[in-house]
Amino acid sequence: MSDVNRQWLLASRPQGMVGEDNFRLVEGPIPEPGDGEYLVRTLYVSVDPAMRGWLVDRPSYVPPVGIGEVMRASGVGRVAASNSPDMPVGGLVTGLTGWQDYAVARKGEGFRPLPDGVSPEAALSVLGLTGMTAYFGLFDVGELEEGETVVVSGAAGAVGSVAGQIAKIKGCRVVGIAGSAGKCAWVTGELGFDACIDYRAEDVGRRLRETCSDGVDLYFDNVGGPILDQVLARINERARIVLCGAISSYNATEPQPGPSNLGVLIPKRGRMEGFIVFDYAGRYKDAAREMGAWIAAGKLTSREQLVEGLERAPAALRMLFEGANIGKLLVKVAD
Amino acid sequence: MSDVNRQWLLASRPQGMVGEDNFRLVEGPIPEPGDGEYLVRTLYVSVDPAMRGWLVDRPSYVPPVGIGEVMRASGVGRVAASNSPDMPVGGLVTGLTGWQDYAVARKGEGFRPLPDGVSPEAALSVLGLTGMTAYFGLFDVGELEEGETVVVSGAAGAVGSVAGQIAKIKGCRVVGIAGSAGKCAWVTGELGFDACIDYRAEDVGRRLRETCSDGVDLYFDNVGGPILDQVLARINERARIVLCGAISSYNATEPQPGPSNLGVLIPKRGRMEGFIVFDYAGRYKDAAREMGAWIAAGKLTSREQLVEGLERAPAALRMLFEGANIGKLLVKVAD
Repeated sequence: MSDVNRQWLLASRPQGMVGEDNFRLVEGPIPEPGDGEYLVRTLYVSVDPAMRGWLVDRPSYVPPVGIGEVMRASGVGRVAASNSPDMPVGGLVTGLTGWQDYAVARKGEGFRPLPDGVSPEAALSVLGLTGMTAYFGLFDVGELEEGETVVVSGAAGAVGSVAGQIAKIKGCRVVGIAGSAGKCAWVTGELGFDACIDYRAEDVGRRLRETCSDGVDLYFDNVGGPILDQVLARINERARIVLCGAISSYNATEPQPGPSNLGVLIPKRGRMEGFIVFDYAGRYKDAAREMGAWIAAGKLTSREQLVEGLERAPAALRMLFEGANIGKLLVKVAD
Repeated sequence: MSDVNRQWLLASRPQGMVGEDNFRLVEGPIPEPGDGEYLVRTLYVSVDPAMRGWLVDRPSYVPPVGIGEVMRASGVGRVAASNSPDMPVGGLVTGLTGWQDYAVARKGEGFRPLPDGVSPEAALSVLGLTGMTAYFGLFDVGELEEGETVVVSGAAGAVGSVAGQIAKIKGCRVVGIAGSAGKCAWVTGELGFDACIDYRAEDVGRRLRETCSDGVDLYFDNVGGPILDQVLARINERARIVLCGAISSYNATEPQPGPSNLGVLIPKRGRMEGFIVFDYAGRYKDAAREMGAWIAAGKLTSREQLVEGLERAPAALRMLFEGANIGKLLVKVAD
């Protein structure tokens, strides 16, 4: 057990691409848990596109991270000391660890034990908020139906890779959109999507016409930007566009033009809807049970990419926006 | 009874603003109704923004009007000759008369008798597709709830003026957006909207902040374009954006940029949805009964602007896109 607590504090609000210079690494003593509290040793932290939004000083679904505060992040840790009888030392927990070696928590606040048999990696990816986002986005927002044609952008990303696999499990035709030939090979190979479009190398409009010759019923959008235009041009009647994320614009300094053909939603009776996974917290357990069964049956797979060391957390965050990850990006903080 | 049938045929597909040169006026004999058919003398035709979409050669919710075909239009007429016992001579009917003096119809196809006590003007406006569009857009697509803040663009237009009044009847705070001080005066005066923004003379963003200080719950969008950006910036959680029309772009020759802040739908859990009124045909009667009661109670008013003469139909269509009308625009073809 290290004797210092490293913490990444938000030093400045990023203008444009987020970088290491927006954070400051400080070292301090390991905090002591008070009465009823316990100490969590961070093992892994999750790296998510939504974290970029938390750095912007505007009202949103969660308050922004303040300057000088520890960077907010989901993570998995081990209880290292405890004054809370329900949280025994050695137990694995998940919650908002933040970008730090140690966090102090109070019973019932922010952390919950990892379910039996769930690895830390899975708890932060396919069985964590990532998987929940894919699940509730598809079923509750997207009202996925068997046999539909589904397009998923960010298909090699954490959420997209799970969303597409679920749609396959539900008997849909699934076309992914991703940013390299290697990503597309993984998406159509291991994940079993019917096709994958490399948006950096291919003409997305033409490839959508080829791969979705009967149109698009559901678009699970993780990226926003020009790809949305191309998909709108192919939507079927009553199509649903699930707005999960818009990673293409999170680091933009200028307003990005929206889709020029939004009006097609009128004759097509199309629906575009955004969502935040936290609204479904009361049903996470049910979803995790169903997804766990798919994993056990070999129908749903997950891939995590590890960046070693808390000191590399800001660099890992930037990797997301550079498209450098395949699957779920995690920072491994300790063994 | 005139002895010729004038018809406006589509001569060419408009590129940019639709004009009289896209149509050709021809004269021919009055058609003879065959067995089981009847002849309709057109009295009024409706002038609707959607007609511009019917001129574009692409698959949509109705087939495009073909070159050389009579321009499609809703209208009201009187049965002038009949070989159909259910359609007696002298009866008023409504249906797709088209831009012509006379139409031949077959029982059960395209025309239905005007309900007792409904004027031709009302049958084409507040109690016709115009009113139905406002009604089903607000209630079924928009899921309007009492006490909400509702913004209506095209507020002095046929659909917008009805939509805003219905929202007022339902206890909402209603802000209109229209294109002149005169329109705004009518909207806040006779129609009773709480406020109206003149988008040609005022800063829409600033005025929305002033008039919707608690945000926007429902946006009934008849115009599309830059105003949508401004409203998106003010939406509340779970806001609904009802895409009814996008008149600002119907005559555009270049793709128009979409809203740059569509991504706000994600944290706000917002929904944007298009619709076509025809889908609600099975419920028109119920809606007309409810709206008729509001009219009788003096809660719902309607204003029609008449253009005299079938020969002016193309000019009337163009007036819509120049913002020259207040309320429902109709062409009066005969007494």
